Amino acid sequence: MLFFTQCFGAVLDLIHLRFQHYKAKRVFSAAGQLVCVVNPTHSLKYAPTRCAAAQASAEQGILPPCHHHEAVHDPQLVPCTCPLFSCPWEGHLEVVVSHLRQTHRINILQGAEIVFLATDMHLPAPTDWIIMHSCLGHQFLLVLRKQEKYEGHPQFFATMMLIGTPTQANNFTYRLELNRNQRRLKWEATPRSILECVDSVISDGDCLVLNTSLAQLFSDNGSLAIGIAITTSKVHSSEAEM
Amino acid sequence: MLFFTQCFGAVLDLIHLRFQHYKAKRVFSAAGQLVCVVNPTHSLKYAPTRCAAAQASAEQGILPPCHHHEAVHDPQLVPCTCPLFSCPWEGHLEVVVSHLRQTHRINILQGAEIVFLATDMHLPAPTDWIIMHSCLGHQFLLVLRKQEKYEGHPQFFATMMLIGTPTQANNFTYRLELNRNQRRLKWEATPRSILECVDSVISDGDCLVLNTSLAQLFSDNGSLAIGIAITTSKVHSSEAEM
Repeated sequence: MLFFTQCFGAVLDLIHLRFQHYKAKRVFSAAGQLVCVVNPTHSLKYAPTRCAAAQASAEQGILPPCHHHEAVHDPQLVPCTCPLFSCPWEGHLEVVVSHLRQTHRINILQGAEIVFLATDMHLPAPTDWIIMHSCLGHQFLLVLRKQEKYEGHPQFFATMMLIGTPTQANNFTYRLELNRNQRRLKWEATPRSILECVDSVISDGDCLVLNTSLAQLFSDNGSLAIGIAITTSKVHSSEAEM
Repeated sequence: MLFFTQCFGAVLDLIHLRFQHYKAKRVFSAAGQLVCVVNPTHSLKYAPTRCAAAQASAEQGILPPCHHHEAVHDPQLVPCTCPLFSCPWEGHLEVVVSHLRQTHRINILQGAEIVFLATDMHLPAPTDWIIMHSCLGHQFLLVLRKQEKYEGHPQFFATMMLIGTPTQANNFTYRLELNRNQRRLKWEATPRSILECVDSVISDGDCLVLNTSLAQLFSDNGSLAIGIAITTSKVHSSEAEM
């Protein structure tokens, strides 16, 4: 009898696994595109342990100013650009990637086109989903942030930063694409350099912005799939003709 | 002397005209696309002449409920669908277009791809920019609305409605595209039927949504150009693959 119960349990597990696999495949992927599951991180930058003033401004949606430029003494050194932590590290631009991987455990993915699958979209703001993306000989940082610019109304902000200088960043174009429920939303722009502040890009709203209702329409079972593509930028010739 | 002054004035006028033409051409169009300049209309639906309750709810960003379904007695008759006015008219679906043109002076444009050029984006909310678009044997209503969902933070909402039934609407896909300053934003969806309420589409946020900062990035000299294209819908085959 115990044998049959165990067999039945194993069969149920198999069915459940198969269902999960089918669902993931149906919604987000396949066709050669690399899907990267990204778990949320509650940003410690805005946690209650910080000083009251910074906390109050964060609550009002005013993020504390970037601490990059204050800390840099040697112009060849850049501060830690991790959007999650106020980290005292500084180093050369070439070693930012290894610092982000090793110290802040940010994953890095290869490929011209990838799918960024952010899980647990329901978690309260502020929350960040972050990965690095290696492509065309450069590394990029993709940040999806849930934040309340207007109290009680969380929004999602997604942007891509080049781990490089602003001049290098001008050579690229990134595209973020959402596609579900017979709706499609595409954002295309020049990435900012990581030397600019991700917080200010997001507070300026110069990125892909989603209200909660749209985020729900595009998400499946609490996860949001964002297709990412990076190309070397051609002159936006059609821009003048729009 | 007077002759020379007049000549000089005429030359100045010519230069000014040429400059305006050049600017319009540079920013919004040419290449065969019809550009339609759309002036704003301050929505009278939410004007202070309406009852206090409706006004109060509009101020809180809660729009008065659609009055469509209450007023219809004959199921073949539809109420006036003009988003600007609370109009007591009702009639058959086939004559909605002529009612909107004649009574509410809404322009109609022909062409598969047009550019909707909304002027005076700085005007305070609530403000609407509306045109009809005739294409593929049907008429569509394009609504751009500036509205404060969160007090003190106006946003722009753009959607396209088919002047037809929901079943007919399912046969089409519309695309709205913004393209300026090395940024591009595209929204693609199935149009809603005008029998559904434009107010609820907008309050649900199931449309192209722009924060003020993004609207400024995409606008030129206070005008926002939106490229519009309508196609018969193919099955969103890539949706499942994203």
